[in-house]
Amino acid sequence: MTGGLGFIGSNVALALSSGGAHVTVVDALVPTHGGDRRNLEDAPGVIEVIEAPVDDVGAVRDAADAADVVFNLAGQVSHVESMARPRFDLEVNTASQLGFLEVLRDVGSTAVVVYTSTRQIFGHPRYLPVDEDHPVSPVDVNGISKSATEQLHLLYGELYGIRASSVRLTNVYGPRQRLRDDLQGFLPIFVRRALSGESITVFGEGAQERDCLYVDDVVECLLLTARSEEAPGEVFNVGNDERLSLRSIAETIVAAAGSGSIETVPWPHDRDAIDIGSYYGDSSKAKRLLGWEPRTPFAEGIAKTIEFYRTHRSRYL
Amino acid sequence: MTGGLGFIGSNVALALSSGGAHVTVVDALVPTHGGDRRNLEDAPGVIEVIEAPVDDVGAVRDAADAADVVFNLAGQVSHVESMARPRFDLEVNTASQLGFLEVLRDVGSTAVVVYTSTRQIFGHPRYLPVDEDHPVSPVDVNGISKSATEQLHLLYGELYGIRASSVRLTNVYGPRQRLRDDLQGFLPIFVRRALSGESITVFGEGAQERDCLYVDDVVECLLLTARSEEAPGEVFNVGNDERLSLRSIAETIVAAAGSGSIETVPWPHDRDAIDIGSYYGDSSKAKRLLGWEPRTPFAEGIAKTIEFYRTHRSRYL
Repeated sequence: MTGGLGFIGSNVALALSSGGAHVTVVDALVPTHGGDRRNLEDAPGVIEVIEAPVDDVGAVRDAADAADVVFNLAGQVSHVESMARPRFDLEVNTASQLGFLEVLRDVGSTAVVVYTSTRQIFGHPRYLPVDEDHPVSPVDVNGISKSATEQLHLLYGELYGIRASSVRLTNVYGPRQRLRDDLQGFLPIFVRRALSGESITVFGEGAQERDCLYVDDVVECLLLTARSEEAPGEVFNVGNDERLSLRSIAETIVAAAGSGSIETVPWPHDRDAIDIGSYYGDSSKAKRLLGWEPRTPFAEGIAKTIEFYRTHRSRYL
Repeated sequence: MTGGLGFIGSNVALALSSGGAHVTVVDALVPTHGGDRRNLEDAPGVIEVIEAPVDDVGAVRDAADAADVVFNLAGQVSHVESMARPRFDLEVNTASQLGFLEVLRDVGSTAVVVYTSTRQIFGHPRYLPVDEDHPVSPVDVNGISKSATEQLHLLYGELYGIRASSVRLTNVYGPRQRLRDDLQGFLPIFVRRALSGESITVFGEGAQERDCLYVDDVVECLLLTARSEEAPGEVFNVGNDERLSLRSIAETIVAAAGSGSIETVPWPHDRDAIDIGSYYGDSSKAKRLLGWEPRTPFAEGIAKTIEFYRTHRSRYL
């Protein structure tokens, strides 16, 4: 798998390893991208780690050749970074990924490939909940680069024998997420601020809704996607049926942490253009085809999350 | 303008120059991409030519800063090349274009930017004619890279002050198209073969329909897009109301050339996956917002085209 030292990737790697799978992780450990070798410290078995970009042919070719299943999670996930360094975002999220697909093609791979895409590709929702027929209309470079790579996966699946599918994830939270800076989205920012006793800033009323997913639910979804005969060639919007306002998300986090506070400020002008309002996905296709269900209520997931970061404070804060 | 030594680009540059505009052309003259300095030999005035990739900051910055209107036509148009060298296609059509947008952003440009996209972004049509609401679902790397760059134009238009729009062109034919090899699509192949007295190969019945556009109609559409107050932020599907089967297209070309023939062969197996069947676009949005109409019947456009290549045979054949 790629990106296996990162937030979601390490949780997938640990689950696979617990299940007895032979796991090889490729991760470039790009600073700020969330990869951290300590994320695999609790692994029950041996997980081989190749520290390389996914398109480093010499480093990844043998592993690509041997893999029956590829969880392809490597990438740059930060909206902020994608706007500050757009060409780097395109290089990491698209050019490098295209190089990885070329490696799979070159070794004649027929692996099942599960690519993780993002709800960012939809931009401002035209209707809610957002299903797979919703037009793709990204409002940042990250959404554009991830969408192009999703299309490349489907194309290489159609033409060259890999069995690729794409899972478009909503906001994910849980253990092993990078908390240190403000680059990984609002959930880790909220969690870090609460744990550090700082105030969480909410713009306006904080009424915009989100469908946050606990990482264990995402891991289960990705494993089900890899096992499904129906998944190859398909895209899945994966979100949660529990929809919460940003304000109530912040309140739940502050309550679980027992520290931090909420500060309400007016909408800053320069956020207007990129704010997408409420977003929540329609996961019925994933439920129907994969037999997946989100299981973790937000309050329960956040309690586990806070507990994890308390225990592993020195790693993440 | 970019790509101004290429097929459509040079026709736009000549039209602008005839109209008295001050024209600066940026063109990388990548071999096989269709750029040729002789395409501007008939220019009525002086056209400045900068031979550089569009993201060469030192070479293009001043021209980008000075431009009121940017026709952004540079790119790799070949389906075949995009599949043979996918990373190069992504580099030229997306990464380099993103670099160009960064130059425009960096100089604080508020130019009108008209980007030329392609019908390739739609892949297999789900319905006909294909309008702007049709899902984007490319079946080649070229369609993916062009679609990403269209999205980048709209994003940079939304956020950074340029007034960008995108025109998705159907198959275009006419003077100044590269005829030498088989990389630029079926129309130049058909024209070259007829002019050379060779046979034109048609797969199966040749019943798939296309809406070919004569280059003068495309030039007029791009000029109208640049002038329209309504165009910025918009995408336009630009095709023709005259729809012809591949067989009748070939017959018209052979008749106009007075040479060549048509050979019918069964569908080769390896073309099945990428064949898109019939394609024709719905241009009603362009007609409504831009006041554009395609004017040139295929038989008339092909007669002019054949005449041009007869007169300039040594340049193109």
